[in-house]
Amino acid sequence: MALSEFDLIKKYFTAYDSGEGIELGIGDDCALLNIPQDKTLAITTDTQIESVHFFKDTDPEFIGYKSLLVNVSDLASMGAKPYCFTLSISLPNSNEEFLKGFAKGLFTLASKLKMPLIGGNTTKGELSITITAYGLLPKGKAMRRDLAKVGDDIYVTGTLGLPGLAVDLGYKNLNLGEDAFNKCYQKSMLIEDRCDLAQSLLNYSTCAIDISDGLVGDIKHILDRSNVGCEIDLELLPKPVEFSEYKLDDHYQDKLCLYGGGDYELLFTANPSFQDDIKVLAKSFGVKITRIGQIKNAQMKLLKHGKICHQFSKAFEHF
Amino acid sequence: MALSEFDLIKKYFTAYDSGEGIELGIGDDCALLNIPQDKTLAITTDTQIESVHFFKDTDPEFIGYKSLLVNVSDLASMGAKPYCFTLSISLPNSNEEFLKGFAKGLFTLASKLKMPLIGGNTTKGELSITITAYGLLPKGKAMRRDLAKVGDDIYVTGTLGLPGLAVDLGYKNLNLGEDAFNKCYQKSMLIEDRCDLAQSLLNYSTCAIDISDGLVGDIKHILDRSNVGCEIDLELLPKPVEFSEYKLDDHYQDKLCLYGGGDYELLFTANPSFQDDIKVLAKSFGVKITRIGQIKNAQMKLLKHGKICHQFSKAFEHF
Repeated sequence: MALSEFDLIKKYFTAYDSGEGIELGIGDDCALLNIPQDKTLAITTDTQIESVHFFKDTDPEFIGYKSLLVNVSDLASMGAKPYCFTLSISLPNSNEEFLKGFAKGLFTLASKLKMPLIGGNTTKGELSITITAYGLLPKGKAMRRDLAKVGDDIYVTGTLGLPGLAVDLGYKNLNLGEDAFNKCYQKSMLIEDRCDLAQSLLNYSTCAIDISDGLVGDIKHILDRSNVGCEIDLELLPKPVEFSEYKLDDHYQDKLCLYGGGDYELLFTANPSFQDDIKVLAKSFGVKITRIGQIKNAQMKLLKHGKICHQFSKAFEHF
Repeated sequence: MALSEFDLIKKYFTAYDSGEGIELGIGDDCALLNIPQDKTLAITTDTQIESVHFFKDTDPEFIGYKSLLVNVSDLASMGAKPYCFTLSISLPNSNEEFLKGFAKGLFTLASKLKMPLIGGNTTKGELSITITAYGLLPKGKAMRRDLAKVGDDIYVTGTLGLPGLAVDLGYKNLNLGEDAFNKCYQKSMLIEDRCDLAQSLLNYSTCAIDISDGLVGDIKHILDRSNVGCEIDLELLPKPVEFSEYKLDDHYQDKLCLYGGGDYELLFTANPSFQDDIKVLAKSFGVKITRIGQIKNAQMKLLKHGKICHQFSKAFEHF
């Protein structure tokens, strides 16, 4: 017999709803939080929908993990320490098998980051997951989009472009075989969070964003809000090993790094005087950090072999 | 030409994103809030989906209004003062006409309650709206589901059952003509919020819930969590004038009040010593408040003419 909404919530989502400052978790009309006096609360919300953000028949464990990861990535891009989250999930039917896997993936990341699930709701509808995530920042500190300075170095964490490749393989825009798709897709769903690194970056950077819609589209937000330009050196873009392994064409590699999207890596800027500190950070957190360019006065320029490279002009948009 | 996601958000959703304690509203990866030291933050989230929570082709203004109202109703049921909210909206396509009406309904209520919209996202998908709403409570105070005491009076605000009637009319379970449906449906979408009253109720009540799934289903949450029972006198249930106007059968009227759902009225308990105070509150806020029964030691009893009335046993559940 199918479990009722209340039974499902109780069985899969109430196990971890308490923590410091959480006066009331799941089970009432609202959750209640007492925020420490010296902290600012960071709030972000993001939705993942089947066939838009992930392919049909994706392993529910991946979906659970990534639904939280995309939100946590926004917390990291401000430098916030993960605190807790709420979950709204719509399902076509009461599918216990799905929920079991979904909860496993979700709580794998939630437990790692010590983020209790403090409330939410389930509804009947197409498969759609909206998470609102909360983080804490030292009062007066945050990496913001509007604080890039001319002369700052531009860095990205990890590598760029693999999630974009997975999407192309999934849509059969390119065929490298089932194994290649599975490997790339799994990596693009189970992306490592950058939360620990991000909190330390607060000491060196005032400006960051996470790369969700593609490097070019997302850096534009920084340029617009900070009223600056930039130069990006395409030869410096950090590419995944799979690109050479699959012998991808050089232009296509650049395209995936610049416009692929779904990377959920941090892009941040920092004064050149911090170059050594950032190398130390990279080493101590075991995270690859690559300098890819510099903030300039003029508009955005993409350079290759020292020359301007005219590329596509539009980042991925949802409509 | 259709506007892009960013343009749409900018045009319809960014006009009102600032207020006291809101360090950063829309436009970065996270919103930033500084919560006053003497306040507890109340958080609730609810989703409205087309053809589940409202009929297809419903006036977008109604949808905007009600999407916020259902969340605000949860804040009221804890006694919290509305503070701000985030919005995640999925749309099948970039429909500006829809967004214009939706935003109008949404901000009608948001402006009245002084709740800025501090963040969110738009996605492509079936029409679905998830709002997460924030309220503030004096530290240590809240009406909770687990604090009903034997001997407490049970009250409800407003009237019950009209939204249930609207649903029956919409599904043609009953036919009273197009005008009757339109009238009932509009009233069930544009429900008055109980926020002001709720904040004053904190002085007299320790236990409340909002009636979203039907009186019987929701009071059960209080009984379960408070480990008590109750007696409800069906003759005391506050019914809308439409019930007699449409000459509805007596048994059907009771059924709508008890199980109809979608009322978004407050159900609260209070010590009988506060009966006069509650009358004063009702008068000063211009809200009908009706005593419908009492918290007891034994299980729930529904009484009519002093005798136990055996009714249906299951509240509406989403799956």
